[in-house]
Amino acid sequence: MTIADGIQDYLVAPDPSRAGLTRAVTGTDQTGAVTEIAVVEERPLTIFLNSQEVVTAMTIGDYPEYLALGFLRNQGMLRSAEDVTSVQYDHEIQTVVVRTASQTTYEEKLRKKTRTSGCAVGTVFGDMMEGLQGLTLPATEVRTSWLYALAHKINRTPSLYLGAGAIHGTVLCHRDRPLVYMEDVGRHNAVDKVAGWMLSEGVDAADKILYTTGRLTSEMVIKTAMMGIPVLASRSGFTAWGVEIAREVGLTLIGRMRGQRFVCLAGEERLIRDADIASVPEDDKRHRRKGAEA
Amino acid sequence: MTIADGIQDYLVAPDPSRAGLTRAVTGTDQTGAVTEIAVVEERPLTIFLNSQEVVTAMTIGDYPEYLALGFLRNQGMLRSAEDVTSVQYDHEIQTVVVRTASQTTYEEKLRKKTRTSGCAVGTVFGDMMEGLQGLTLPATEVRTSWLYALAHKINRTPSLYLGAGAIHGTVLCHRDRPLVYMEDVGRHNAVDKVAGWMLSEGVDAADKILYTTGRLTSEMVIKTAMMGIPVLASRSGFTAWGVEIAREVGLTLIGRMRGQRFVCLAGEERLIRDADIASVPEDDKRHRRKGAEA
Repeated sequence: MTIADGIQDYLVAPDPSRAGLTRAVTGTDQTGAVTEIAVVEERPLTIFLNSQEVVTAMTIGDYPEYLALGFLRNQGMLRSAEDVTSVQYDHEIQTVVVRTASQTTYEEKLRKKTRTSGCAVGTVFGDMMEGLQGLTLPATEVRTSWLYALAHKINRTPSLYLGAGAIHGTVLCHRDRPLVYMEDVGRHNAVDKVAGWMLSEGVDAADKILYTTGRLTSEMVIKTAMMGIPVLASRSGFTAWGVEIAREVGLTLIGRMRGQRFVCLAGEERLIRDADIASVPEDDKRHRRKGAEA
Repeated sequence: MTIADGIQDYLVAPDPSRAGLTRAVTGTDQTGAVTEIAVVEERPLTIFLNSQEVVTAMTIGDYPEYLALGFLRNQGMLRSAEDVTSVQYDHEIQTVVVRTASQTTYEEKLRKKTRTSGCAVGTVFGDMMEGLQGLTLPATEVRTSWLYALAHKINRTPSLYLGAGAIHGTVLCHRDRPLVYMEDVGRHNAVDKVAGWMLSEGVDAADKILYTTGRLTSEMVIKTAMMGIPVLASRSGFTAWGVEIAREVGLTLIGRMRGQRFVCLAGEERLIRDADIASVPEDDKRHRRKGAEA
């Protein structure tokens, strides 16, 4: 676990100066002048569950073990940390192998699927939806004062995003305190890394809030619900299916958080409006996402 | 092919008022006031190549045939339009089946792969990289005056993005004229829909420019190169691998296009700086991407 200097509150904070996460690339600007900018890395990581190849994710490459664990957990392929006997990362061949004590149901499903239609791609999403059946999220309250405080802290935390852009962040929070801030080229990876950390550390999800820079799509909502977190907030917007699923599972969904403004489209009953809105500073231009609109 | 009224230049323009692309969703704002916002739709679409299920994409749902054709083309699974005997979209079960006269090499590969490791997910990316081998893009020039004119026109075109946000756009352009503007919840889908349109219409790629709102990741660069388009420009930033691949295949890669500014990290030799930068208006706040940072 990395504890960054000077960021007292975080258990895991971004470490933008860490070697291998960005690269200086030389090009030209609009005037033709030579310019050097920091660009985030992006590498393939192939995740295995026992002897089964599951997916190849494109990632910046930090926390490969958390990414693999969290991905498998959020797909409903791992029930708990006890199932896991080892997590083995091989830097050279860019793979992570997660081993479990007993064969998982996923491997059986996959075998069946590949026998019938020849490919498992389509099952991944179906499996996620299946995992939501009967899920109810705890009725934990969330205060608007926390949400404003979180956005303020997170936007000012030194990060790859502030240094290089073109990256997404997801932050696990407790009340007004950001705990674990993961970044990745894909917003789903950032969420999966948080999930992997939670699984490894045995962290309770019921009193947590998840903050993301990415859009609130069906996949983001499903992952958050699979993690058991009752609140998902974002600077970005919604998709209709994301809202629908959030309402079905009772997740509080807050989007378009910019300065004083936000919109809540699901789980309104959990929200306590205790903040003095007039005291919240408007969105600082300097902290708007630059070049990460993807 | 849709030709939108009042947008003279486009062959295909966004049609934000089209039924089924957005939904009005009611929620509350920061003050607790009830608010209704337009939210983009997101639905699964499963793509088949002959009897082979290939992928399930999450899409807004317009142009499913172009999406399927373009996806298969950009994966290197379809060589040309002549191979295709039919493209059949079934709205009810949300599938598109693309049929070819002869069995494709992909089906053989998939069969082999599923026999060995049980799943084809990992091959998709490998196949794309394979398709790039020996590819050389034409040395078409690109004028900075065109790039500025394109950004200006595209940012002012009525779109789902301007109406609802949380969506990405990709625009096929010729010189300073935007021709085909596709939008989707996934930036890759928007590119694939452009590719599908090009394949269907038999459009030459050598003199085209592709403009995207998304980040310039390896996958975006590979898709553009697979389409044979020599220039890719974006408001967003880069990843290191995206830059690397662009340099290998000789693609001109321009990012962080905001107002007067941009950075060119590959294919500089194709760029002609003819624009009077001082006359280019600075980035209009009203046209900054809202809520699409994903």
